[in-house]
Amino acid sequence: MPARGGRLGSVFLLSDFGTADEFAGVVRAVVLREAPGCPVVDLTHEIPPFDVRAGALALERTVPHLGRGVVVAVVDPGVGTERRAVAVSVVPGAGPGFLIGPDNGLLGFAVEVLGGTTGAVALAPATWRLGTGATFDARDVFAPAAARLWSGARLEDLGVPIDADTLVHLPPPRLEVELGVVHAEVLWVDRYGNVQLSARPADALSAGLDADLIVVVRRATFVTRRSTSFVGDEASTQRRAAAGPGSAGGDADEGDAVGLITDSNGHLALVCRQRPAAIVLGVLAGDMVIVRNGERTRSAVAGGATS
Amino acid sequence: MPARGGRLGSVFLLSDFGTADEFAGVVRAVVLREAPGCPVVDLTHEIPPFDVRAGALALERTVPHLGRGVVVAVVDPGVGTERRAVAVSVVPGAGPGFLIGPDNGLLGFAVEVLGGTTGAVALAPATWRLGTGATFDARDVFAPAAARLWSGARLEDLGVPIDADTLVHLPPPRLEVELGVVHAEVLWVDRYGNVQLSARPADALSAGLDADLIVVVRRATFVTRRSTSFVGDEASTQRRAAAGPGSAGGDADEGDAVGLITDSNGHLALVCRQRPAAIVLGVLAGDMVIVRNGERTRSAVAGGATS
Amino acid sequence: MPARGGRLGSVFLLSDFGTADEFAGVVRAVVLREAPGCPVVDLTHEIPPFDVRAGALALERTVPHLGRGVVVAVVDPGVGTERRAVAVSVVPGAGPGFLIGPDNGLLGFAVEVLGGTTGAVALAPATWRLGTGATFDARDVFAPAAARLWSGARLEDLGVPIDADTLVHLPPPRLEVELGVVHAEVLWVDRYGNVQLSARPADALSAGLDADLIVVVRRATFVTRRSTSFVGDEASTQRRAAAGPGSAGGDADEGDAVGLITDSNGHLALVCRQRPAAIVLGVLAGDMVIVRNGERTRSAVAGGATS
Repeated sequence: MPARGGRLGSVFLLSDFGTADEFAGVVRAVVLREAPGCPVVDLTHEIPPFDVRAGALALERTVPHLGRGVVVAVVDPGVGTERRAVAVSVVPGAGPGFLIGPDNGLLGFAVEVLGGTTGAVALAPATWRLGTGATFDARDVFAPAAARLWSGARLEDLGVPIDADTLVHLPPPRLEVELGVVHAEVLWVDRYGNVQLSARPADALSAGLDADLIVVVRRATFVTRRSTSFVGDEASTQRRAAAGPGSAGGDADEGDAVGLITDSNGHLALVCRQRPAAIVLGVLAGDMVIVRNGERTRSAVAGGATS
Repeated sequence: MPARGGRLGSVFLLSDFGTADEFAGVVRAVVLREAPGCPVVDLTHEIPPFDVRAGALALERTVPHLGRGVVVAVVDPGVGTERRAVAVSVVPGAGPGFLIGPDNGLLGFAVEVLGGTTGAVALAPATWRLGTGATFDARDVFAPAAARLWSGARLEDLGVPIDADTLVHLPPPRLEVELGVVHAEVLWVDRYGNVQLSARPADALSAGLDADLIVVVRRATFVTRRSTSFVGDEASTQRRAAAGPGSAGGDADEGDAVGLITDSNGHLALVCRQRPAAIVLGVLAGDMVIVRNGERTRSAVAGGATS
Repeated sequence: MPARGGRLGSVFLLSDFGTADEFAGVVRAVVLREAPGCPVVDLTHEIPPFDVRAGALALERTVPHLGRGVVVAVVDPGVGTERRAVAVSVVPGAGPGFLIGPDNGLLGFAVEVLGGTTGAVALAPATWRLGTGATFDARDVFAPAAARLWSGARLEDLGVPIDADTLVHLPPPRLEVELGVVHAEVLWVDRYGNVQLSARPADALSAGLDADLIVVVRRATFVTRRSTSFVGDEASTQRRAAAGPGSAGGDADEGDAVGLITDSNGHLALVCRQRPAAIVLGVLAGDMVIVRNGERTRSAVAGGATS
């Protein structure tokens, strides 16, 4: 049942093209030329160049909020090589029905969050490929493929069916949950410096994390609290001068107070009121951080665990 | 009478989300999912993070040029706190009929330039809120509210009527007009380095400013002229080496010539042909500058004032 | 015959407005207000400020891929002066039918690649100009002109016919092809650091260039190979420590290997697998580079040339 505004909703674009060059503009124009009337929605074009993992994570965060349509995702260091170009369909529902991109793991997390594939093809654009270059598949292959799906083509019209199990997968985010301690990967540092972790509230619950927490990043230790907003006054955190975690810190600096919240994607995130938390903590995407109970709580948990 | 392309024109977005993260993309997608067929127009997403005043000024400059529709503006350091989320209606006409955003002063200047509110509600999204997070109201509250208004909902369908006088207001731009002198705030430095002032031509008229002018920024003084374009050859300006204003300067540097024009928003603006005027003058948004008549004109004005 | 989604396809925007200010947003909104239902497609707004040549080259690369519609291009250091504002029509076909912009050479390369003009007018917006400023013609003149053309107006409804031969032209890209040697201008360095040259494969053929090549940039020399993709393993290139071109280099550094490919615009381009080729080569747009046959090939070519 087609949505208003298009036979199949929208075409959604995510890439590492940046916005300075005309790459994204050309893709937008090609989709619209091949599928007149199609709403084209930019998700972002500023995935760091060639950072497939960052693109895959951004896509995972984004797809649950999309309406019907076709996602075209392009972070594609292997363009022009033998890497496959693929299109997959996912469980029908309110979200996008199709995702298109290089077979390098970029689509994997998003597909998973959407419930897995119901079909997959290796694009075989012999008859409908545009252009002659080998280096701009977004323009020549992915955009026309999306236009065709949006216009009603079936997945099997676009290529050769493949076993979805053969799709390239990225390693999942790192996460270890122990009693009183969570080891989590920094998945994303956003524009405001918020630090999204691979852990979720359920992980904190499994670990028995309490409100009073200690965050360890490399050799630095921070005292933090669970909070419900970026500016909750309960987010009182003190930076510890020394390294070893354990007791509560001394010289509090409210401006640097770091809180642990549940972010808008349902992940735990370290946030800071006055400054970018990523700057305060000194972390980048890909780093590991340890979140553990403070002294008192850890004793209580340990006691509870032995009783 | 609905416009072609949507029941109520477009949904317009302004935010401090930046373009690197997927925030703006998700908001675009949610509007389109909730209001299929709705044209979504990005005004800008690069308001400096948390700079409510910059956002309010950008919105004021923008809204006079918009067609019918709903403006969603989000510069919202207080998201997740008790700050109100509001929607207001403005005097019906050619422009946007509704504005939505946090109640932190962001909408105020725009509402004023549109003629004031005709209604206001505190959003009460109990039944139509999307998502569960407390930190992405643009996605979960503002976008669905905009989609509903665009689709024909009434303001009172979205929340609890409030007294518009209770809306948070920002202090107005600073401006003092005296005989022969205008003290004006720098409202905006644009991509080209043009320096928009809080003063308008009518203020220059009230002050009796002439074509030959002196601009004082902190301790530095510049000689300037009224001009009609960025490159008018009448914009001959000399930088003064010394501090005190008064007589004409010495070593002219055409490349640094600063002119005073009426810009495309009807404000006076300091511009420079060869280099960004903001660099030449050394000013940032929020600074105060003094524009005064040169020696001869000031004498004449003073004489006229005493006659 | 109108396309779906609009009477005349889309309106396409290219400018140096950047994305931080609301300039592009206002233009989008004005087009949509004046032409409700019109798809507005951003090509890019990040042409370097006032860089007419970069804008003209980006437009040339873009227009072959556009569907029907009207291109509005604005890199306009002379706005507010006597420079003409123009609209031109091009040979009817699948691409955009009209281009609008300042008469400063910005449109020239694109018009040429589209087959030349079929009509040209100097915009005379006395009756339909919007706003009163002299410094934002994109909003006040170009956008309403585009909306009118999109809505079915004829070129002659917008202004005074002019001789297309009087349009300002930029000097063409520099290119010299000799036996075994191509002297080419760097037209563009993209986000990935790829270096697009003014030369095309046909030029390489004319010059008798072989697979093994030497690239000379200023005083530095690089050994390179023709390749078909960014990561082709045949792109083995060695940087030469010394200056003089000629014999094959010594210490290979695979990470810095530079390949010569045919890019997605049909130009020769210098690319690098691991790092931005422009950084490896030390070139900027506008620089000249020499691509010549390596020792062995040059001998063969020379032999062939004398036989």
